[in-house]
Amino acid sequence: MAPERHQAVAAGPAATRRRADARRSIAAILDAALASLSTSPEVNVAEIARAAGVGRVTLYGHFPTREALVDATVAHAIAHTSRALDAVDLESGPAPQALARLATSSWQILNQHRQLMAAGMRHLGTERMRAHHDQALDRVRALLARGRADGDIRTDLPADWLITTYYALLHAAAEEVNAGRLDPREAGHTVAATVTAALRPPP
Amino acid sequence: MAPERHQAVAAGPAATRRRADARRSIAAILDAALASLSTSPEVNVAEIARAAGVGRVTLYGHFPTREALVDATVAHAIAHTSRALDAVDLESGPAPQALARLATSSWQILNQHRQLMAAGMRHLGTERMRAHHDQALDRVRALLARGRADGDIRTDLPADWLITTYYALLHAAAEEVNAGRLDPREAGHTVAATVTAALRPPP
Repeated sequence: MAPERHQAVAAGPAATRRRADARRSIAAILDAALASLSTSPEVNVAEIARAAGVGRVTLYGHFPTREALVDATVAHAIAHTSRALDAVDLESGPAPQALARLATSSWQILNQHRQLMAAGMRHLGTERMRAHHDQALDRVRALLARGRADGDIRTDLPADWLITTYYALLHAAAEEVNAGRLDPREAGHTVAATVTAALRPPP
Repeated sequence: MAPERHQAVAAGPAATRRRADARRSIAAILDAALASLSTSPEVNVAEIARAAGVGRVTLYGHFPTREALVDATVAHAIAHTSRALDAVDLESGPAPQALARLATSSWQILNQHRQLMAAGMRHLGTERMRAHHDQALDRVRALLARGRADGDIRTDLPADWLITTYYALLHAAAEEVNAGRLDPREAGHTVAATVTAALRPPP
């Protein structure tokens, strides 16, 4: 009976308040981590806790390792980006133009988080980073399907590879800007022009 | 006078023999590490030492950390690839066709080392990996310059970005094959077709 009794206690008003506190702490930590890691990817966890207004013990209680914190912060950044991209018109005109608008808008947001993305590549690995983006790439997936049906997007290469092309070029641009080899003001246009060329049906 | 005397001793026949032994050990370790890390990137250092026929102490003497060993092995793989690519004809025909031949041949070699490249991304980070490839990308750099002069390669985007496009798509293909999303037998053609489309002058 002990587990049930424990569950009954945990469902009481005190437990509800504790869960609400935990949710608020987590939200504050992720907002602080997003802001900190996006500007200085090597920032230490104590500074993130301070910025979030929580103790280090609380932070470690929710995120036992730096890897766990980076992982949750990347997910938080992608969810934030995804909400912002709801405003992009993906219906009007041919799919390649819609894809160029999506790439340009995605770049504008990714540009703010490119240091965090570099930290993610380092701490989580390329495959975990790709998995994090999978849902966000549904927009690209749908646009490519429309473009392939309309004859505006190439059908001679696998659809999954075209999604990878979009993803790889956007993230390569972030790395190039981080390395100082690409002007961030030119990056959005540059990526959009490269992606649309790569996905166009061959002549 | 002690340092000079030490130097005089170190230049004698015993020292020459020790240096030759060290060179042979390093070569054996790098060959073993290339073979091991290319098939199982999580292989432990003791197994690499065993495959190289050297003791663990000798291996750690030359490569104190796993990161140092991965770093040297990536450089070894790229030097090996670069020698193999000397056989590719980059002179005949227009630059885009030569670039497609180069991409296809590069893929065939990269395909053998794609697990090592994943380990490199993980242990060394994306920027160090890009720096390792810088000299190998001179071939691409030269072909792009020829193509831009001839009007066969786009000039509306920065030359550095076009090199990044080539590099990013080749390495994205390696990750896609590692993840099981791309058939390795199709990857060479797929990458070549995508790169040439991305670099073609816009219509």
